[in-house]
Amino acid sequence: MIKIKILSVGKTREKWLETAIAEFEKRLTGQVEFECKWFKNDKRLAEEADKEPSVICLDPEGKEFDSPGFADFIEGQGARMTFVIGGAEGLPQALRRSGPQLSLSKMTFTHQLSRLVLIEQIYRAYTLIKGIPYHK
Amino acid sequence: MIKIKILSVGKTREKWLETAIAEFEKRLTGQVEFECKWFKNDKRLAEEADKEPSVICLDPEGKEFDSPGFADFIEGQGARMTFVIGGAEGLPQALRRSGPQLSLSKMTFTHQLSRLVLIEQIYRAYTLIKGIPYHK
Repeated sequence: MIKIKILSVGKTREKWLETAIAEFEKRLTGQVEFECKWFKNDKRLAEEADKEPSVICLDPEGKEFDSPGFADFIEGQGARMTFVIGGAEGLPQALRRSGPQLSLSKMTFTHQLSRLVLIEQIYRAYTLIKGIPYHK
Repeated sequence: MIKIKILSVGKTREKWLETAIAEFEKRLTGQVEFECKWFKNDKRLAEEADKEPSVICLDPEGKEFDSPGFADFIEGQGARMTFVIGGAEGLPQALRRSGPQLSLSKMTFTHQLSRLVLIEQIYRAYTLIKGIPYHK
């Protein structure tokens, strides 16, 4: 079982987002176990991210993949992955040092929308890796 | 009042997506009027898009903007805009001929997720154009 942690700032208040994310998590049951952690500010996020052996930071200036490229990237990461999504001010400078930086889009997304797009792309990646049809 | 049409294939069945889109539409009340139209297949979509004076087609191979660049793009379009989002097989070839092509990301999104990201970015663009704070 792959374990994916997502660290971000600010809890989700939007019910629609919780529903959407739960739907993608459900589709990945048995293959990927998600753990989402929220921190109250960028400083706390950076402290927690520093405890991880390696992190993948989401940043609009990071590397952009197409979906098959992202599937290859995911497959190359092994069985443990930690993604870090910054708050309204983006990622703390201190965090930008380690590991690959990933961009979902050149556009700026809220951290809520980033989390949804990230989980949807992780689900899409596994449909490509496992050769299963994308559930619509 | 700006009028924005979004033409796409396949009606949204996900309640979370309807809620999310309604939230962004509400925030733009008085500034932007949205009209979303769904067609049952790419052929019908192409026929309807052909009736529009000009269309902006969403395509992963289109031009990518950052959010301020997208705000400039939106501002330059005048008071009527029609966005076209293709179905699972992407845009019909016939439609790729006219007008600018816009990419939200190098990644492939479902047409549902594309619609949400597009409307969120339109809302974000108007906060930049009007100098109003982004509601979180």
